[in-house]
Amino acid sequence: MTWEEIAEKIGMSPVWTHSAAMGMNAFPLEKAKLMVSVMGLPQEAESVLAESPTKIWEQAVPTDPCIYRFYEIVGVYGPTLKALIQEKFGDGIMSAIDFDMSVTRIENPKGDRVKVEMTGKYLGYNSW
Amino acid sequence: MTWEEIAEKIGMSPVWTHSAAMGMNAFPLEKAKLMVSVMGLPQEAESVLAESPTKIWEQAVPTDPCIYRFYEIVGVYGPTLKALIQEKFGDGIMSAIDFDMSVTRIENPKGDRVKVEMTGKYLGYNSW
Amino acid sequence: MTWEEIAEKIGMSPVWTHSAAMGMNAFPLEKAKLMVSVMGLPQEAESVLAESPTKIWEQAVPTDPCIYRFYEIVGVYGPTLKALIQEKFGDGIMSAIDFDMSVTRIENPKGDRVKVEMTGKYLGYNSW
Amino acid sequence: MTWEEIAEKIGMSPVWTHSAAMGMNAFPLEKAKLMVSVMGLPQEAESVLAESPTKIWEQAVPTDPCIYRFYEIVGVYGPTLKALIQEKFGDGIMSAIDFDMSVTRIENPKGDRVKVEMTGKYLGYNSW
Amino acid sequence: MTWEEIAEKIGMSPVWTHSAAMGMNAFPLEKAKLMVSVMGLPQEAESVLAESPTKIWEQAVPTDPCIYRFYEIVGVYGPTLKALIQEKFGDGIMSAIDFDMSVTRIENPKGDRVKVEMTGKYLGYNSW
Amino acid sequence: MTWEEIAEKIGMSPVWTHSAAMGMNAFPLEKAKLMVSVMGLPQEAESVLAESPTKIWEQAVPTDPCIYRFYEIVGVYGPTLKALIQEKFGDGIMSAIDFDMSVTRIENPKGDRVKVEMTGKYLGYNSW
Amino acid sequence: MTWEEIAEKIGMSPVWTHSAAMGMNAFPLEKAKLMVSVMGLPQEAESVLAESPTKIWEQAVPTDPCIYRFYEIVGVYGPTLKALIQEKFGDGIMSAIDFDMSVTRIENPKGDRVKVEMTGKYLGYNSW
Amino acid sequence: MTWEEIAEKIGMSPVWTHSAAMGMNAFPLEKAKLMVSVMGLPQEAESVLAESPTKIWEQAVPTDPCIYRFYEIVGVYGPTLKALIQEKFGDGIMSAIDFDMSVTRIENPKGDRVKVEMTGKYLGYNSW
Amino acid sequence: MTWEEIAEKIGMSPVWTHSAAMGMNAFPLEKAKLMVSVMGLPQEAESVLAESPTKIWEQAVPTDPCIYRFYEIVGVYGPTLKALIQEKFGDGIMSAIDFDMSVTRIENPKGDRVKVEMTGKYLGYNSW
Amino acid sequence: MTWEEIAEKIGMSPVWTHSAAMGMNAFPLEKAKLMVSVMGLPQEAESVLAESPTKIWEQAVPTDPCIYRFYEIVGVYGPTLKALIQEKFGDGIMSAIDFDMSVTRIENPKGDRVKVEMTGKYLGYNSW
Repeated sequence: MTWEEIAEKIGMSPVWTHSAAMGMNAFPLEKAKLMVSVMGLPQEAESVLAESPTKIWEQAVPTDPCIYRFYEIVGVYGPTLKALIQEKFGDGIMSAIDFDMSVTRIENPKGDRVKVEMTGKYLGYNSW
Repeated sequence: MTWEEIAEKIGMSPVWTHSAAMGMNAFPLEKAKLMVSVMGLPQEAESVLAESPTKIWEQAVPTDPCIYRFYEIVGVYGPTLKALIQEKFGDGIMSAIDFDMSVTRIENPKGDRVKVEMTGKYLGYNSW
Repeated sequence: MTWEEIAEKIGMSPVWTHSAAMGMNAFPLEKAKLMVSVMGLPQEAESVLAESPTKIWEQAVPTDPCIYRFYEIVGVYGPTLKALIQEKFGDGIMSAIDFDMSVTRIENPKGDRVKVEMTGKYLGYNSW
Repeated sequence: MTWEEIAEKIGMSPVWTHSAAMGMNAFPLEKAKLMVSVMGLPQEAESVLAESPTKIWEQAVPTDPCIYRFYEIVGVYGPTLKALIQEKFGDGIMSAIDFDMSVTRIENPKGDRVKVEMTGKYLGYNSW
Repeated sequence: MTWEEIAEKIGMSPVWTHSAAMGMNAFPLEKAKLMVSVMGLPQEAESVLAESPTKIWEQAVPTDPCIYRFYEIVGVYGPTLKALIQEKFGDGIMSAIDFDMSVTRIENPKGDRVKVEMTGKYLGYNSW
Repeated sequence: MTWEEIAEKIGMSPVWTHSAAMGMNAFPLEKAKLMVSVMGLPQEAESVLAESPTKIWEQAVPTDPCIYRFYEIVGVYGPTLKALIQEKFGDGIMSAIDFDMSVTRIENPKGDRVKVEMTGKYLGYNSW
Repeated sequence: MTWEEIAEKIGMSPVWTHSAAMGMNAFPLEKAKLMVSVMGLPQEAESVLAESPTKIWEQAVPTDPCIYRFYEIVGVYGPTLKALIQEKFGDGIMSAIDFDMSVTRIENPKGDRVKVEMTGKYLGYNSW
Repeated sequence: MTWEEIAEKIGMSPVWTHSAAMGMNAFPLEKAKLMVSVMGLPQEAESVLAESPTKIWEQAVPTDPCIYRFYEIVGVYGPTLKALIQEKFGDGIMSAIDFDMSVTRIENPKGDRVKVEMTGKYLGYNSW
Repeated sequence: MTWEEIAEKIGMSPVWTHSAAMGMNAFPLEKAKLMVSVMGLPQEAESVLAESPTKIWEQAVPTDPCIYRFYEIVGVYGPTLKALIQEKFGDGIMSAIDFDMSVTRIENPKGDRVKVEMTGKYLGYNSW
Repeated sequence: MTWEEIAEKIGMSPVWTHSAAMGMNAFPLEKAKLMVSVMGLPQEAESVLAESPTKIWEQAVPTDPCIYRFYEIVGVYGPTLKALIQEKFGDGIMSAIDFDMSVTRIENPKGDRVKVEMTGKYLGYNSW
């Protein structure tokens, strides 16, 4: 079964489903139940899947080439993302918590392209 | 003048224009010329803008909260991006060189959202 | 003039006023104007004070003893803060953006105490 | 049983109870005894719970988003905390040892807020 | 059996064969099958060999002297490689994904030499 | 003048010429003299160009994408380079001191390729 | 003038006087005044000497051999200091704020010895 | 049994006894024998206790608050210790090898104090 | 048996013998055979001893005081070693591969001295 | 003038002379005087040369190939140096303070060799 298929069976997106299965997000209880039945897991897995994980990555700079390229994009374009968010919204950030993401394949005669889309709620800095 | 307006005047996207102006990309010569005239820069700026920059970022983990959130996304969702690229394309990566990105504002009654879209050419690992 | 007095004159809290003056927050335009008149700064300072700063701290582990103690509190009590936020709210975080903080002096016969109060909006992780 | 309930049963605060259970604080002997009976632990657990732990955190910069936000607050507001402690008390620090903390939920129509309160004894630098 | 012989038996180069066997590249399915029969591995090894690995190296600066020398070459000659790639191709990089490498022994009366040859597709930075 | 042309004028390779001009190698005196006349430098430059430089690179992991790709190659293929050098030569290393390198452009209908060739003297570990 | 003499003239210890002069402690106002007259400093130095400094050291591991030896003592004997403080006092620490230190020379026929004495207030961990 | 009592039984100081038991010093053979009989250890422990240990500490900056305070003292007062050793002895260091240390409790109406005393042989830099 | 004795029995130096036994050098086959018979190892040990090891050390800065002193010598005298090698030989290095070392005890009335002697082949930088 | 010649003129060794001139050792007053007259320095240089320097090196792992090779020797042979010092002397270290070193050129038909000799006083760990 692909992640695409698992995601469809539990009614969530593939990105979120994979990240939750990797212990980077918690399954809401009803999704944990679906996951247990779809994947044929033992009943005890339910509460494990529903627990809030502690998110750990071990290397400040990732080594895997596929993941490193995204780190590089943050290094090269980070100040640009900040500048344009400020230009369009004011002084603030894009939330990484109230956040969603998708990955799709774009056909292209010069070579297909990976498309990554993410949206996150804008949060303005408070002044008090 | 906003980055949006500068970008429009030189016929490029705001993301690319800002990153090139920050020394993270090189202006093609004709764009460098336009930039000089749009911004009222001295003639000598042309060749500086057109030079291939050495891209340096100084901290392995960025501190600015707006940029850090993107670093966090790579940490939390990096393995997911890798897994889904492999599921959809095979063993390979999304290029960060043959790459483009945009930032837009999405109106939303619960609070407007930042939308970041990026596409990069898929590159399959060579085996030889 | 103390930070307490400056803050009062511009109608903001001392914590926020100091952090903005240190380049860790941006003054809204009307507060930047007040700041300029209260502090007797040149007119050009207005736009500088109103600019969104890039927030940089140079050492992953702070050395100054007064600041280090707060770093230590995050190290010792970080997992506890996470556990109790989850117990009271669900899977999510306290925002450091939609955030405020105060510092007060508490008289105490065994030695006065520093009281630090902070509130931040709860943000639940999105699942999609 | 929630941490709130365990804490109540042993007559301590939830913050302290969780941190002691995580091995970041030592239970006074009578509290260790209560803990053993409340949690149904074997008798030998008593002395383990009462031992002074060595407090270790493994990454200079925490990765979990919920804990990172507190690290970020120390980075952004650390110099401010230092400045205001000096303004209100003189040259010194807030103790992280003679210290207490609480976490509460503040209802708010724009979204509930996490409130973290901490007090620590002021310690003035000695000169000799 | 040497890596040279294994590589010949599966019809691939020794560099690629070794790196794939070390978990730094994935075997295409037909090569995984050959590998299993050449090496006398159990049938289950097939899918393991064909899986996309996560590429991890544990020390930012390698310690083994033989590997360190290549790290040193990148440190000493990195800016030169960049300058000459730009001179010959324009603003871009040599791909490390669409990439191949060989190692050969060059007889030399003053002491034999190691010859390392690598080619990678030139990728020009996109401007958009 | 390109590096290719400068190199030709002083009768050295472009790789070596660039690295020496960047302060990563010392010019032999006669080449320093040629360099001074070819580039129209003041007489005093001669001894500076001929001095043994201290070779420093500032970041353990390079950030520039073009240089990083070579670092990544060392990470991914380092153990392979080591294994094949041992298979072909015995227990030892490729020297990075008695060393040369070239960069050439290989035409290719699927996209031109960068070719990097390096040879270094094999040095066997001494046992005594 | 030696530090010993300066210290005597302002009525403080040499350790404290040197550390305050190096910007690692603040002079109380009356000591700052004495310092200005003893050292013949301009009047403006008074307030500079009396300011609470931000204490920064630049390398996590000190390189100077004389300072490194003390770092080594903390590494080798740190767990022992912790164990004996707990044995003699309970669960707590020695304050580095309410703290004093002296350095003296001990004559010894086998070679004179450096004697370092420090006392710090014992602070017991709070439980609440 | 406390460390104080164990130390007394083998006729050594508590600081040294604890550090040797933690594997940070080697027991001379006769002390290893005493240790075995005092602690009721198996005969084989003798040679283990007498072996020269490799001294390892795992984090450049210790996290445990009790140990960190000593690290902080080295950071804040390191340059002072160096300056006063030079003033009293000349250009050299305090040995951390020909070294001893004690920890005692000093009664004090304002709160008891930890007293740490250390002496180390002065070693002058050789010039040759 | 001491390392001195083992080394003598296999006809190699103690430094090399110990380093090879620690997995930092490979035994030539005939020495591996001798080692197996001298130490009474199982036959399979032969090929393990003869294998080229990957040399790993885990901390950039060693903590053990005996090893650290050599690291300190490299820090303090590194630039001097470089300057004198260049003065005596030209632009190049001392090989750490074609290398040997010995440790001896020098009697001295003021305290015996450790003598470390190393020789390594001079390698001049290539220019091409 | 070479370092060899300068050293001879002031009656010290070249290693020590260079290291003192680089600010890694202090000149005794009479040598500082000689240095001033030999090098034709202004009178004020005397006290600067005689001052105890703070020894700083900026990168935990040196990058210059000539210096790195010595770091590598410490990494590869550090545990061996420790083992043999213990075998010959007991539990202790070689001092890096009461220390001397020389560099000489050894003629050799297979290529001249660099010889580095160092002696340091043996210091046995104290037990107390």
